[in-house]
Amino acid sequence: FQHYKAKRVFSAAGQLVCVVNPTHSLKYAPTRCAAAQASTEQGILPPCHHHEVVHDPQLVPCTCPLFSCPWEGHLEVVVSHLRQTHRINILQGAEIVFLATDMHLPAPTDWIIMHSCLGHQFLLVLRKQEKYEGHPQFFATMMLIGTPTQANNFTYRLELNRNQRRLKWEATPRSILECVDSVISDGDCLVLNTSLAQLFSDNGSLAIGIAITTSKVHSSEGEM
Amino acid sequence: FQHYKAKRVFSAAGQLVCVVNPTHSLKYAPTRCAAAQASTEQGILPPCHHHEVVHDPQLVPCTCPLFSCPWEGHLEVVVSHLRQTHRINILQGAEIVFLATDMHLPAPTDWIIMHSCLGHQFLLVLRKQEKYEGHPQFFATMMLIGTPTQANNFTYRLELNRNQRRLKWEATPRSILECVDSVISDGDCLVLNTSLAQLFSDNGSLAIGIAITTSKVHSSEGEM
Repeated sequence: FQHYKAKRVFSAAGQLVCVVNPTHSLKYAPTRCAAAQASTEQGILPPCHHHEVVHDPQLVPCTCPLFSCPWEGHLEVVVSHLRQTHRINILQGAEIVFLATDMHLPAPTDWIIMHSCLGHQFLLVLRKQEKYEGHPQFFATMMLIGTPTQANNFTYRLELNRNQRRLKWEATPRSILECVDSVISDGDCLVLNTSLAQLFSDNGSLAIGIAITTSKVHSSEGEM
Repeated sequence: FQHYKAKRVFSAAGQLVCVVNPTHSLKYAPTRCAAAQASTEQGILPPCHHHEVVHDPQLVPCTCPLFSCPWEGHLEVVVSHLRQTHRINILQGAEIVFLATDMHLPAPTDWIIMHSCLGHQFLLVLRKQEKYEGHPQFFATMMLIGTPTQANNFTYRLELNRNQRRLKWEATPRSILECVDSVISDGDCLVLNTSLAQLFSDNGSLAIGIAITTSKVHSSEGEM
């Protein structure tokens, strides 16, 4: 972690700041593809094919959105697989700041971190992607490394705050058994146009405040 | 106002709900254009030409985003012009709910209301527009009917809350002396993709909670 940079950006912050460097998705970059990758996806988001190849319902495919990884295993060992094979950092704490660097890099790019909180592990994915050609957007979502039933017990909040503007997104996390690609292509997440991302960025880095809580019954649903 | 419909949607709400019907922008619809409209804008957002034709700096052009209106006058009479000529409703109260109907209508469409609060009048504009062809998006912003210096004293909040998702946008309102078209084309406002707008809609209507406060010094800027 580049704490020196985080400290400069968050001089008055008391929260844990995690600097997250971007990773170009190998699965979108055929020239860098590992030999293990058999598919011929070429810059287009692949369909969510992982689920189709899982025959043992107790086995979970590698859901790391960075790679077309042939690994599969039980839910309990997904975290150690992501840490060890994909070098994804894991942070502790109810509220953290995710500082994504090098926002100017061309799409597709992912920024990924795991977040350990309330006895569970979550995966935060920020993705820069061109849903409309020539118009990259940023998509941020949080997945629980657990079942959909477990995911329903939580609420996550992503918050941007800079330049006298504030944007907050609150939702129930999806389970990692669902596909992060489809969550993003459905747009059911925090979505930022490039211009907004620039307004919220500082020196090419975007700070996202993250908080996870156990969800209450949404009694205020439909009110304001 | 169709309060019966608002009550059905917000059965438990204590706040004032204003049902806002859409208005197709005359300036985007040449076949319906008034004779007074000399420009030949054809479905493309026009440049913000109003400012160019104002010679007397004390006179404000009609900033109603619906029409290419030849009117100009002093800031003090903009509200009565918008009410009388453009039939824009005005609501009182610090917190109101803006209920935009018929979200399915094709772009470009505007939903507009004035909001009287803290001794000033504000204009709320929700616009459906195809920034990228074939992909309509919704843009919502609030303008102060006053000067930029006056606008800096306020903060407005737009909030969507439905289906276990919540999205909040907070910013300083722009002055109506600036151009609503450029605020929207810059994307410096609440932006919703169609899929998110559907998640937040109920029966084709989108409820936006609006609150205006006097702005404090942003001491928490850059923190979270």
